[in-house]
Amino acid sequence: MESLHGIPGGKKEVWNTVSRIYLDGTLTTRTDPQVLEEMLPYFTEKYAVPSSQFSHSHGKAIEEEIEKRREFIKGYIDGKEGKLIFTSGGTEANNLAIKGFARENWDKGMHIISSSIEHQSVRHTLYTLEKEGFEVTYLPVSPEGYVDPDDVKKNIREDTILVTLQHSNPEVGVIQPIEEIGKIVKEKGIAFHVDAAYSTGWIPFSVENWKADMVTLTAHKVHGPKGTGALWIRDGIKIKPLIDGTFHEYGLRGGIPNIPGIIGFAKALELMDDEERERVKYLRDYLWKRLKEEIEDIKLNGPEERHPANLNVTIRYVEGEAVVIQLDLLGVSVTTGSACFSRKLEASYVLRAMGVPYEDAHGSLRFGISRFTTEKEIDEAVSRLKEVVERLRKISPLGRKE
Amino acid sequence: MESLHGIPGGKKEVWNTVSRIYLDGTLTTRTDPQVLEEMLPYFTEKYAVPSSQFSHSHGKAIEEEIEKRREFIKGYIDGKEGKLIFTSGGTEANNLAIKGFARENWDKGMHIISSSIEHQSVRHTLYTLEKEGFEVTYLPVSPEGYVDPDDVKKNIREDTILVTLQHSNPEVGVIQPIEEIGKIVKEKGIAFHVDAAYSTGWIPFSVENWKADMVTLTAHKVHGPKGTGALWIRDGIKIKPLIDGTFHEYGLRGGIPNIPGIIGFAKALELMDDEERERVKYLRDYLWKRLKEEIEDIKLNGPEERHPANLNVTIRYVEGEAVVIQLDLLGVSVTTGSACFSRKLEASYVLRAMGVPYEDAHGSLRFGISRFTTEKEIDEAVSRLKEVVERLRKISPLGRKE
Repeated sequence: MESLHGIPGGKKEVWNTVSRIYLDGTLTTRTDPQVLEEMLPYFTEKYAVPSSQFSHSHGKAIEEEIEKRREFIKGYIDGKEGKLIFTSGGTEANNLAIKGFARENWDKGMHIISSSIEHQSVRHTLYTLEKEGFEVTYLPVSPEGYVDPDDVKKNIREDTILVTLQHSNPEVGVIQPIEEIGKIVKEKGIAFHVDAAYSTGWIPFSVENWKADMVTLTAHKVHGPKGTGALWIRDGIKIKPLIDGTFHEYGLRGGIPNIPGIIGFAKALELMDDEERERVKYLRDYLWKRLKEEIEDIKLNGPEERHPANLNVTIRYVEGEAVVIQLDLLGVSVTTGSACFSRKLEASYVLRAMGVPYEDAHGSLRFGISRFTTEKEIDEAVSRLKEVVERLRKISPLGRKE
Repeated sequence: MESLHGIPGGKKEVWNTVSRIYLDGTLTTRTDPQVLEEMLPYFTEKYAVPSSQFSHSHGKAIEEEIEKRREFIKGYIDGKEGKLIFTSGGTEANNLAIKGFARENWDKGMHIISSSIEHQSVRHTLYTLEKEGFEVTYLPVSPEGYVDPDDVKKNIREDTILVTLQHSNPEVGVIQPIEEIGKIVKEKGIAFHVDAAYSTGWIPFSVENWKADMVTLTAHKVHGPKGTGALWIRDGIKIKPLIDGTFHEYGLRGGIPNIPGIIGFAKALELMDDEERERVKYLRDYLWKRLKEEIEDIKLNGPEERHPANLNVTIRYVEGEAVVIQLDLLGVSVTTGSACFSRKLEASYVLRAMGVPYEDAHGSLRFGISRFTTEKEIDEAVSRLKEVVERLRKISPLGRKE
């Protein structure tokens, strides 16, 4: 049997060990078996694609099924006054929205407003646009991670064409005052893009109340399949396609759509209701309560009122990497905002932007609860974490300043 | 029971009727149940993603599995000296290759050579680049659809930076002399992109023999899943990413990969061997033989030596749309290169570029054989087509010039 981190049998048993606990739901989630069930016929039976308006029945039947899902998802976000463009995920949707809008509307101005804690797909898209001559203002955030609506207002210029902000942040769970910001942006007649990838299904919202012009959605963070997302775009808003090709998706996104993915995306949303959200929120609160009870010198990163599935804490006098690796050996999967985990050897830019001191970012742990997490798993995870923290603190060079 | 085109029960039975015959395999194919089987655990069990080099075991295990597939596919196309970047499909891969290369290397020249029968995803990508200031030469093709290697040579200029050509054409099955062209392109030190989406798995090739620098692949045309493709790119070739974001895919394609899709892609290729290809080719040849036996005034579009799963014919004195619609009522799914089917009310640009007269393009029919097609289905399809053609010719305004 192979060995993982020197533990005999580790690797082969990663997936089968009942006691293994997955708490990285912020990054991605298990596809719900009911979602998968719904997708299955679209692989081996309903596998055609609509090829034209005079398509054969195989294609026509699929087209109807896709349009039904498109309408359902539009309804789910109160987005009847717009188009829903299916993409390969939230990252593509963010790229399409921001690059697509900027490159189509640059003659009206080349200034964009965003924040300093956006997702990498927004950040790096903005960096690309900066190289193309656009100017971007990255608004600061409060220690809890909030963008100040007044800051948005103050930074709007004559040549501002777009404000792009995240609804909820996958690292620290903070939920921006999008409705308030939307009102300001709309008054100025500027386009408003909201990255709601992490909110999709988890936090009910209305694109109308937000006064948003473009909204990014994704499936895989809410027990839908990977490889599927969408960009909602208000009627009248003009963007350039990112991926040119066939006529699909209103001519705004070429290529044959990921049909099983779209079916699964809609099913995942259908399965999310207030009861589910409350149940997950309860588990998240329970985790935070148990952590505070069992581990000393622990503090919350981000606000109390946050995304229902998200928890981010700093455990003082330990290194995040060490905790994650040790916890992994004990069968618990979590992540840290510490340096090495970013692949760039720098601590989480989100925590840094919130003014979290370097040493605190270093000891940060991110938990993502999922619909499949149980109270028993949380008890078990806390107990294993306690063991790890105690062991590490004994040998830690960081030392406990008592 | 609902009615489709006036046939009672049509719609509901589209997928269940045993007698329904799908011959549109050129557009997309059924995901092989063995492929789906291989994908299943990656939805509900192995659902994590590698988040960093210090990831937890859930993530690490997935990373290893993905890298295994990456290496397998690289080996399959003899592409060890390059990177394989997983994308959402062939369309994205074509966009990434052509836009990515052009936008990164425009300072070396702004001329690109292509052909007049490329896939929409290449055509429309080139149109976009033309708007950005690039100049594109669209080489003509012979009546059988071939690009003349001498034409490539003659059109190379001082400022030519890229030649992009399709290996096999999904509409007429023609296979370009890529090896010969690659030699010419390489001698001139120009980058060479080959769109091998339709060839993936169906026609064995070596990117080394082609002297290609970038090669587009896709899964869903060879019984793999929709939503997955790849761009192979030779080490040393520099491109700009199309989709910015996380560190995945060598930093050249952001976003969490479609992991079940990648697993399925590799499995689909694994299932393709010479025996399978020969069996499909035999069925295609059998279809052509039976069509010639049963239907008068029928001619082949494209060359005899072609993609093993492809057949494109013109049936004189009938309209393609009428044939497709009538055939659909009789339970057979095919497509036509005729006007309405293009959604643009123009006859197939591929057939037109080959010099096929307008009235012949009008009566064209495209068949795509698949691994699940049977001889019995072909017999049945030919018999139904014969019935349709006879009926239409009786009432056709085109009249039979006898």
